[in-house]
Amino acid sequence: MNSSIFLCSPHESSFNHDIASAVSEGLSQSGMAVRMHDLYAERFDPILSETEILRKFSFDPLVQTYMEDLIWADLLVVVHPDWWGQPPAMLKGWIDRVLRPGIAYEFEGEESAPKRHVPLFSGKKAKVYCTTDASPEEDSGTLKQIWCKVVWPYCGIPDAQLRMCYRSRTLGVVERGAWARQCKEDARIF
Amino acid sequence: MNSSIFLCSPHESSFNHDIASAVSEGLSQSGMAVRMHDLYAERFDPILSETEILRKFSFDPLVQTYMEDLIWADLLVVVHPDWWGQPPAMLKGWIDRVLRPGIAYEFEGEESAPKRHVPLFSGKKAKVYCTTDASPEEDSGTLKQIWCKVVWPYCGIPDAQLRMCYRSRTLGVVERGAWARQCKEDARIF
Repeated sequence: MNSSIFLCSPHESSFNHDIASAVSEGLSQSGMAVRMHDLYAERFDPILSETEILRKFSFDPLVQTYMEDLIWADLLVVVHPDWWGQPPAMLKGWIDRVLRPGIAYEFEGEESAPKRHVPLFSGKKAKVYCTTDASPEEDSGTLKQIWCKVVWPYCGIPDAQLRMCYRSRTLGVVERGAWARQCKEDARIF
Repeated sequence: MNSSIFLCSPHESSFNHDIASAVSEGLSQSGMAVRMHDLYAERFDPILSETEILRKFSFDPLVQTYMEDLIWADLLVVVHPDWWGQPPAMLKGWIDRVLRPGIAYEFEGEESAPKRHVPLFSGKKAKVYCTTDASPEEDSGTLKQIWCKVVWPYCGIPDAQLRMCYRSRTLGVVERGAWARQCKEDARIF
């Protein structure tokens, strides 16, 4: 079984990095092959251009690598902080540029007419790990909506899992370690 | 009264451009001063860096202009297509980089402790115009959630308006013109 992890956090040694490492370790220990991408470190360009939309293909080698690693993986993992109830812009651009027609879904029918879409990730699993300053009571549910009701179902994964680490800014090192361990354990179960 | 319009669409002569122009015309005709920004044309960089987060200030002149135009305006208008129930990455980066502490909201209390936030846009109005391939029945409500429940309320605008132009891809030139006229009329009422 294969797994691709996409991490998006601007801080070089962030809590999100710790979570991604813990998840990677957990998956490796359970015998999975893991490919990890750090979008900020890899300087991913999130801007979907008109040319790329019209061409329906990206010449950006990083976009191509991300596409290959999505197709290759049985388990897709995303790790990011909650910015405005949404992913950071860089990760939104990963959705825009990498989850493209022909990769994550396809259209049936004519170009100009209303088309039925065919998801291409059926059979894969997805897990999303988020850190947020909000408490569970303050959670607007927008990230759950985005990942579990819109993005992953559209690609053919109706049962994506989202784990929110609440009030992450206020957690001490021990609590962070405990959360990372939980994520490591959780990552093996799917 | 002043109004700032922020348009985000990669196509140079898109339906979103028509809507933004119609809104601008409507506002001008009702006597408002209007400043218009086309994020793609102005090559806005959506990536919020670690340095910019830590510095709590941006040296990017475009970010500074956008901040000034937000502060200057009584009415904030955003125009964009629906990509994955969300704004395009470039506009998400505008939220990340421009709606910053000290501009759109402020924190009370100590840096490390849980803080109460103070919205800074109280008294302003916000309108968002979106085009989407979805039908009203297919609308997940995520954009309503993002703009009207999360982003604008957090800045102090609890009653932001969202107008969705459904099935926009299938609309002919007459229907698009009619929609743009509706937006022009609508823009004057707030």
